[in-house]
Amino acid sequence: MAGHKVKFLPSDRVFVVDEAETLLEAAMKLGVHINASCGGNSACGKCRIKIVEGDAESPRHPTISEVDYDNGYRLACTSRPRSDLVVEIPLESQVDKASLKRKPHRPHILAASDIGELVKGWTAEPAVFKVYLELPPPSIEDNIADVERIKRALRIDHTIDDVSVAFGVLKKMSSLLRDEDWKVTVTLIHFRGGYRLVSIEPGKRHRENYSAVIDIGTTTLCGQLLDLANCSVAKVTEKTANGRDVCTLAESSDYNSQISYGEDVISRIMYARKKGGLKRLQDAVIATVNSVIRELLDIAHVDDGSLSHLVLAGNTTMTHLALGLDPRHIMLAPYTPTVTFVEPVRAAALGIHVGDHVYAYVFPCVASYVGGDIVAGVLGSGIFQREKITLFMDIGTNGEIVLGNKDWLVCASCSAGPAFEGGGIGSGMRADRGAIEQVRINPATYEPMVLTVGRVKPLGICGSGLIDIVAEMLLAGLIDQNGKLRRDAPTKRIRKGDNGCEYVISYGAETQTGRDIVISEVDLDNLIRTKAAVYAGCRVLLDQVGLTFDDVERVVIAGGFGHYIDLERARTIGLLPELPLNRFLFVGNGSLLGARLLSFSEGLMTEAERIARMMTNIELSNSPKFMDEFVAASFLPHTDSRAFPGVLRELKKGRGEGV
Amino acid sequence: MAGHKVKFLPSDRVFVVDEAETLLEAAMKLGVHINASCGGNSACGKCRIKIVEGDAESPRHPTISEVDYDNGYRLACTSRPRSDLVVEIPLESQVDKASLKRKPHRPHILAASDIGELVKGWTAEPAVFKVYLELPPPSIEDNIADVERIKRALRIDHTIDDVSVAFGVLKKMSSLLRDEDWKVTVTLIHFRGGYRLVSIEPGKRHRENYSAVIDIGTTTLCGQLLDLANCSVAKVTEKTANGRDVCTLAESSDYNSQISYGEDVISRIMYARKKGGLKRLQDAVIATVNSVIRELLDIAHVDDGSLSHLVLAGNTTMTHLALGLDPRHIMLAPYTPTVTFVEPVRAAALGIHVGDHVYAYVFPCVASYVGGDIVAGVLGSGIFQREKITLFMDIGTNGEIVLGNKDWLVCASCSAGPAFEGGGIGSGMRADRGAIEQVRINPATYEPMVLTVGRVKPLGICGSGLIDIVAEMLLAGLIDQNGKLRRDAPTKRIRKGDNGCEYVISYGAETQTGRDIVISEVDLDNLIRTKAAVYAGCRVLLDQVGLTFDDVERVVIAGGFGHYIDLERARTIGLLPELPLNRFLFVGNGSLLGARLLSFSEGLMTEAERIARMMTNIELSNSPKFMDEFVAASFLPHTDSRAFPGVLRELKKGRGEGV
Repeated sequence: MAGHKVKFLPSDRVFVVDEAETLLEAAMKLGVHINASCGGNSACGKCRIKIVEGDAESPRHPTISEVDYDNGYRLACTSRPRSDLVVEIPLESQVDKASLKRKPHRPHILAASDIGELVKGWTAEPAVFKVYLELPPPSIEDNIADVERIKRALRIDHTIDDVSVAFGVLKKMSSLLRDEDWKVTVTLIHFRGGYRLVSIEPGKRHRENYSAVIDIGTTTLCGQLLDLANCSVAKVTEKTANGRDVCTLAESSDYNSQISYGEDVISRIMYARKKGGLKRLQDAVIATVNSVIRELLDIAHVDDGSLSHLVLAGNTTMTHLALGLDPRHIMLAPYTPTVTFVEPVRAAALGIHVGDHVYAYVFPCVASYVGGDIVAGVLGSGIFQREKITLFMDIGTNGEIVLGNKDWLVCASCSAGPAFEGGGIGSGMRADRGAIEQVRINPATYEPMVLTVGRVKPLGICGSGLIDIVAEMLLAGLIDQNGKLRRDAPTKRIRKGDNGCEYVISYGAETQTGRDIVISEVDLDNLIRTKAAVYAGCRVLLDQVGLTFDDVERVVIAGGFGHYIDLERARTIGLLPELPLNRFLFVGNGSLLGARLLSFSEGLMTEAERIARMMTNIELSNSPKFMDEFVAASFLPHTDSRAFPGVLRELKKGRGEGV
Repeated sequence: MAGHKVKFLPSDRVFVVDEAETLLEAAMKLGVHINASCGGNSACGKCRIKIVEGDAESPRHPTISEVDYDNGYRLACTSRPRSDLVVEIPLESQVDKASLKRKPHRPHILAASDIGELVKGWTAEPAVFKVYLELPPPSIEDNIADVERIKRALRIDHTIDDVSVAFGVLKKMSSLLRDEDWKVTVTLIHFRGGYRLVSIEPGKRHRENYSAVIDIGTTTLCGQLLDLANCSVAKVTEKTANGRDVCTLAESSDYNSQISYGEDVISRIMYARKKGGLKRLQDAVIATVNSVIRELLDIAHVDDGSLSHLVLAGNTTMTHLALGLDPRHIMLAPYTPTVTFVEPVRAAALGIHVGDHVYAYVFPCVASYVGGDIVAGVLGSGIFQREKITLFMDIGTNGEIVLGNKDWLVCASCSAGPAFEGGGIGSGMRADRGAIEQVRINPATYEPMVLTVGRVKPLGICGSGLIDIVAEMLLAGLIDQNGKLRRDAPTKRIRKGDNGCEYVISYGAETQTGRDIVISEVDLDNLIRTKAAVYAGCRVLLDQVGLTFDDVERVVIAGGFGHYIDLERARTIGLLPELPLNRFLFVGNGSLLGARLLSFSEGLMTEAERIARMMTNIELSNSPKFMDEFVAASFLPHTDSRAFPGVLRELKKGRGEGV
């Protein structure tokens, strides 16, 4: 992609901006403030700039007069550089010089396809594979049973021994072999040290072998369709132009239909105790699994019958509900799940609309509140292979954390609440189209600069947007360290609302719903509780093994924040510890990352079990130490000033207290 | 049982007779002829004898006048000795002195419970077993998953490791554990080198563990109910007073309901090709399986839920039909079955009315016409363990033969036809109540002496009766060596019937149906073809490995003859080779014999597979050598006079040709 030098006045700093980027997106990334509250879709007309030198592609917006347009005025959200540019930020968008000195931030984002960097030494050997066979027809001298003929060919021609055959295959085997002139494709799965033949198809189909991997989140299900027949470590590891590896044919996600029965796992478990509740919850999540699979197949134009494998990863409650197992004892002390290690189960038996031969591989769980999604994340992020200490944080509906290395792993669940997935926040939503994902607030005018997912009118606020908003409000002095709004701040955007005092990010005229998008003190309270629980959990885990944050060589962050989490802002609010930015690694959906690997490499199934067994769960619920840490962390960034010296320096600077 | 010395006049020979035996039964066993054509139930009044000395318990029969009764006349079929006796056989029953010199015959019968003598070195370790667990309830310090708690107890308290858990068990596990105060009984099966937990029950149930083993014959299904919880090699091997071992709780049998769709496997396969035919055949045989299981449970007063294991053994066609697999290619050259090695399959999935956790273990087959019943017979009779050569013959609906020792086994199927199970014989029936099972014919008067199963009025002729009849007719000179009746014999019993010339065994007045029971020349032809096929098959097998009958150290005979097969008579007609009687061993239902063992000892499952793989099948159908041998054997006893010198001597003697 061609890049052009762009100088933003009055800062005088020069950045390289891609031709595909809008000047608003570039400004957001580079730390240059331009007012914009409609999410970057030219609705509000606030992000007016002036092209002083050079050429930019930009239509005239109705709010810009023809004279102004001739004089170089444009909207930043619709302008893309076509040459080197000098751009002037108008007075109303400018911030004071101090805030201009903030370093631009490039998030450390490692997408799921970068797993090659994280997990070492695996081989692409899918758990399910197909073999094309051309069998010699039987004769009176060689009239062994059809099954034995197939086994013999597998043994002699493909060195595949110890094959058992699923009963369902037997029924159609003899006629198919003869109809197809003894040329068939068989599907095999690894099975207790040997193989199991689970399907037989006519003719040559061994290149059509696909897997669906699905992360079953409490809020959202995310899936990928993988090409197993053509995978290799290199292919899985290398991204192509579309941002995916060639083995990932489609991605899809959907809200968990269980949401209508409760937002978090506890309310789901409560519902499961009602008559018929468990069945309804299972039906609901399976319906979503089915719709995700359907969409994956449709996107990739893959035939239903070619889907051979299914990997499911979810927290312990979701795992129980998807399997139709009563989760009630997960909720009651001493928090005992029915099962943590689930054997591959026939997907059709769960109501999943796939071939009878497809087995669902369910990620092993550790405890009631550390589930298969976390084990998948630990697997996918490779921390179980590293000498040095990694802290793994999955901040989804719950906050689960894992600390350790190749020799030991401790873990805990923080009951953080779903704030970062949009739960418990008035305008909260997941990182979908229309979600406010990046925000800057002008500390002089308190005007926001907002980008949404898809650059459409805002619909709500996702996790990364929430972190930005709270951090920016703190830095701009709009809230104090307790999360209380400065009611006297000279801006109309602070006002009294239904949930106490609130700050308006986008007015109704600029939003999709026509309603204002705000952040209230109730929202702030929820967010602070959430981030405090996560941070406190980390401290307890570290304390448990006699370490501190300084001993942590890498912090891996997984979760539903969306793709633009700003690590600096997350440190600002005290969600993440104040460590050098290069120690952080954002892996997106960690659960999916591990689930993918399991499909590509059968050997990693054993590894997943080993990881789950290695993970020692620390129950925080009854820990006095955790309560102390939680109270200490219920402050922005933290009551322990030694823990966040950098953040505190910046806050003092913002308040004009100097360095 | 008390025995008394009985002297039968005019032979002067003295025998010991049990108090429970009738004098007719004793006479039959001892080779003393007494006319009796009603099967031994006092209907015909022909078996009149005179007690000359001593005391016998015997009611007066209406055909005996009070005067005659006072003079000592009795019916042999209702008289039992109460002291030493001298008994006079009336003139009309007497035979000439020559035939009195025939040696009395005691059949070499080894019942299924004598397996201890046949199979060595096995241990009583049932494939399915139960373990009672008292688990420590969970606490916050020990809150592992319920499944893991069970696995831990199995590992630590019972050294049972590598346990996988069937999905169906998970659903009720958590509530059951808590309802039962953590005291439960689990059912485990051996599974690919480890174990599989297939059921969980409340409380202490580990002593209630039963198995049903069923031989699925083309004509008849035979079952036994076994006590797995209390079995040991000694217990399984030792017979108790009721003739069974203490581990065999019940026996039951029933006609295969498929019989209405055809008598032999070929007609069943033909029917299976019709629309819906396969399903109807499967339903039919499964219905019979269900009725046999029901009866077994009822007899032993065993609860349905306590049945843990099911072993099925059948020929290859029956195996396919029971599993619902299309058998058509079994019938068509080159005679290829779909499957020979069937993995344990959930019985409920086949429509069998047992618990969801019960797996059916299906005996492996060798080829289209050498099935699991034969493998079971080879296993049960221990020939796979012996140094010396054994010939195994199973003469049921088909004739299957196996030759070999611990190092090699060859086998063949003779397409013998179901004559010995009553098929193809006008008055044929299986060895059920009312079947004529023992017959002697007075060579002077051509009057028969008949015993039926259950000593009731005759209903038909079973295999052993048929052998007796043909041999006796040959010895009495009623038929020639081609099986043609001597039309000029001075007896009304030879007459012209619907199927050519025939001999009347029982007149309608003496039978259950009111119809005469006869043996016709068509019956004789069928029988000769059957016995010729079996004998010819043996010769081909021996020839294949360069051996002769003299090299055979033991002949094991299995099949549906009933319990009274007379080995001498079987040699007389040339069904069995002329070898010393002590080389023969009659094992009854060989299939059941092996199927039992499999339930008692898991290790023998592997052994059964090894046997099946070791058995080399010789296809006789296209063998010119077999056709030659068959033609040569289609004679009584055989065209090769060197093969049956003793039989020929006896025939010459009968014809007054001297020795």
